[in-house]
Amino acid sequence: MNYRMIKYITGWLLIFEALFMAVPAITAAVYHEPEFWHFLMVMGGCVLLGGLMVLRKPASTTLYAKEGFIIVSLSWIILSLVGALPFFISGSIPNYVDALFETASGFTTTGASILTAVEPLPKCMLMWRSFTHWVGGMGVLVFIMAFVPLSGGHNLHIMKAESPGPSVSKLVPRVKTTALILYSIYLSLTFIEFVMLLMGGVSVFESLTTAFGTAGTGGFGVLNDSIASYSPYVQIVVTVFMLLFSVNFSCYYLFLLGRLKDAFNAELRSFLLIVAAAIGIITANISHMYSSLGESLRHSAFAVSSIISTTGFATEDFNLWPALSKTILVLIMFVGACAGSTGGGIKVSRIIIFIKGVGRELGSMIHPHRVKKVTVDKRPLDDDTVRSVNVYMVCFLLVFVSSIALISIEGHDLVTNFTAVTATINNIGPGLELVGPTQNFAFFSYPSKLVLIFDMLAGRLELFPMLLLFNPKTWRK
Amino acid sequence: MNYRMIKYITGWLLIFEALFMAVPAITAAVYHEPEFWHFLMVMGGCVLLGGLMVLRKPASTTLYAKEGFIIVSLSWIILSLVGALPFFISGSIPNYVDALFETASGFTTTGASILTAVEPLPKCMLMWRSFTHWVGGMGVLVFIMAFVPLSGGHNLHIMKAESPGPSVSKLVPRVKTTALILYSIYLSLTFIEFVMLLMGGVSVFESLTTAFGTAGTGGFGVLNDSIASYSPYVQIVVTVFMLLFSVNFSCYYLFLLGRLKDAFNAELRSFLLIVAAAIGIITANISHMYSSLGESLRHSAFAVSSIISTTGFATEDFNLWPALSKTILVLIMFVGACAGSTGGGIKVSRIIIFIKGVGRELGSMIHPHRVKKVTVDKRPLDDDTVRSVNVYMVCFLLVFVSSIALISIEGHDLVTNFTAVTATINNIGPGLELVGPTQNFAFFSYPSKLVLIFDMLAGRLELFPMLLLFNPKTWRK
Repeated sequence: MNYRMIKYITGWLLIFEALFMAVPAITAAVYHEPEFWHFLMVMGGCVLLGGLMVLRKPASTTLYAKEGFIIVSLSWIILSLVGALPFFISGSIPNYVDALFETASGFTTTGASILTAVEPLPKCMLMWRSFTHWVGGMGVLVFIMAFVPLSGGHNLHIMKAESPGPSVSKLVPRVKTTALILYSIYLSLTFIEFVMLLMGGVSVFESLTTAFGTAGTGGFGVLNDSIASYSPYVQIVVTVFMLLFSVNFSCYYLFLLGRLKDAFNAELRSFLLIVAAAIGIITANISHMYSSLGESLRHSAFAVSSIISTTGFATEDFNLWPALSKTILVLIMFVGACAGSTGGGIKVSRIIIFIKGVGRELGSMIHPHRVKKVTVDKRPLDDDTVRSVNVYMVCFLLVFVSSIALISIEGHDLVTNFTAVTATINNIGPGLELVGPTQNFAFFSYPSKLVLIFDMLAGRLELFPMLLLFNPKTWRK
Repeated sequence: MNYRMIKYITGWLLIFEALFMAVPAITAAVYHEPEFWHFLMVMGGCVLLGGLMVLRKPASTTLYAKEGFIIVSLSWIILSLVGALPFFISGSIPNYVDALFETASGFTTTGASILTAVEPLPKCMLMWRSFTHWVGGMGVLVFIMAFVPLSGGHNLHIMKAESPGPSVSKLVPRVKTTALILYSIYLSLTFIEFVMLLMGGVSVFESLTTAFGTAGTGGFGVLNDSIASYSPYVQIVVTVFMLLFSVNFSCYYLFLLGRLKDAFNAELRSFLLIVAAAIGIITANISHMYSSLGESLRHSAFAVSSIISTTGFATEDFNLWPALSKTILVLIMFVGACAGSTGGGIKVSRIIIFIKGVGRELGSMIHPHRVKKVTVDKRPLDDDTVRSVNVYMVCFLLVFVSSIALISIEGHDLVTNFTAVTATINNIGPGLELVGPTQNFAFFSYPSKLVLIFDMLAGRLELFPMLLLFNPKTWRK
């Protein structure tokens, strides 16, 4: 284990976290909020400690896959631990575990909150909550590695560990350039949404926080009723952008290069099909609850986009919808967004590989001597990817089941426990019953909150980094 | 596809089903019930049709894996379709879909019932319900193949398709002899339970039906309150035998041979550990609801044994227990019994292979160049078994999720839908809420009942045979 390299990168992480906090600090300055000084204190501490840690560049900058995983999981935990400090020391969230829950929920773009009301919070804290979504959406370490002065291209392992999806494809040979292209797309899309919200009459502050929350597919809002009180225009803009941020960003790059056929790959086609089917069924299922078909369609489209993109914004309390609609929403909670987007969940591409793997297995039972490869977009997948996807699913189930068992000790109803874990491990935010769209996670005990914090981090980093961090074998010589 | 061979074996199946019906027919004769004639009618029809089908032995008796699967799935469907006839034509269950549900639930050893009360049923019908459990428990086709005059050892494919668990190990070189040993153990254990129940003061009829229901890990009772009104002695006997029938029968053979170390293999040890842990936690969790710790222990042990063995007998309404107990019961619904037992569920050995597969995957991330095999009982598993187990899990999830989506169209609550599918696909019987231990499946619509019938058959035959039967590619040249 290259401990010096871990220390070095963690140092840079602290410095960058201080930079990120400049955004809420400026907000506090603009609105003359006293929490400005709390942000400044934490920023000062980060720069000081981080500066000391990066003073000496490690002699060996070699990183193996193992170290890539450890750096990523450790960084996200530190990011959350430090990011929770402003909430805690300013007294906005008086308990540290609660502050940690809120921050982890922010960075992992979950959007599950322990706040019973968000409107009483200072504007700078609301900005920090929403900005953590934006930071966490595209990943922190890949961003940092694009700026940190390190020789060699050892950051592919970090990109692999941090980026969502079964496999990482570099758009261009250099990881750094790939990262810059992806961040430019991310920034541009966020900016376009920001402008479109402004055009809908939303204030600068709310346009910015909503755009950050959508872009990261996070879901923290600045109003108690999330998006419900905004005009239909604003709701439609948010619906469209939630879907846009659920698409693999490589598709936009291919689209810009004019390679339309490559952009509309199997994953994107399946994603759009699932979205359309879910919206269609739910619209029909809830049509008796609303005055017009248009209204049903708008609420159904919003809920489906919010859930499948794993954002978690709400316009309506879907906990009151019929069982079929709720079941479909719970199912697409697991599907999640496309790989390489800012969304969470299992990812559409993994679902495709699962189903094709089953097809191959059934095929090999019919013709035992004719072994076929699983192909996606007419390219054969290597066996390692297929196996790794299957193992991912099993890991997912194990973490999922253990978490439900642990939080059920508290004695809440089964649907609450089930959907609380579903909503955190898939980085969505709201679930059903006690954690429904109009509720929050405040009532859970601190041990349960720690379990759910683990689930949010494990879900965002796609399990393996967090599992490796807590695996004793990783630390054995 | 060797259609002649499929026809030939199906013919024998009908003849054997007529033989099985002799048991309820004799019961009807003893109790002077008019339903005797209905059984005789169906038996006559079976012998006539079956006799015609086996008149000409097929020229080629070769069976490939594909045909093994198809024969097994087809046979179980025919077994249920024909077995439902006595219920239907006698008017005991006036609707044919309901009769089919009850019969499929019987043969698949599920024990889910559409009857709101069982006591009004004639004794012969109760006997037929319980006897279908006993027939279905060990599998029908392996039994038939041991008697049908066929040259060649082509019945391994059938045994593979019908026997539960990730792999089939023959105890002795000949499949026929292996089958005879297993059936002898089955018969002996059933007989011992029958005698022990008699010793507890239970009538001959009830001892017999209860022994059949326990042996097949089925769960149909002859009293409306299942096992609740029996004495603690009887409840303890049933508890112990539910566990005994959840153990791989090969372990008993090894035990009889004195190979104790081989008998107490990894699966059996894990199974006993899970049972002990579940009983311990639930006893503590429900202790405030009962007058003594002994009573809590008895009810907890009964519920855990009933669920993990996938029997489904009940002494208490565990739907009223706290969330932690209910969660643990739902979790062990999925675990199920050991491979090679009469119990259902995913099977302990598959869970072991899952978890070890994850361990290997994590290990290969730490040391990418040191690829280790998954070992169980110190023997390495071949990659095909590991892959097939993973694919099994994915198939399970797909069938599970589709079934929940289909029955949720009816609009019942999520826990009812979730546990109804859980209880049928794992061949348990009762679930929670509307399908809890004191409830039944009568309220479901006929389309939902057909979905659940499919789940019972798919669960009993471990998915692949049923999926292959409905896969168009199977029937393509």
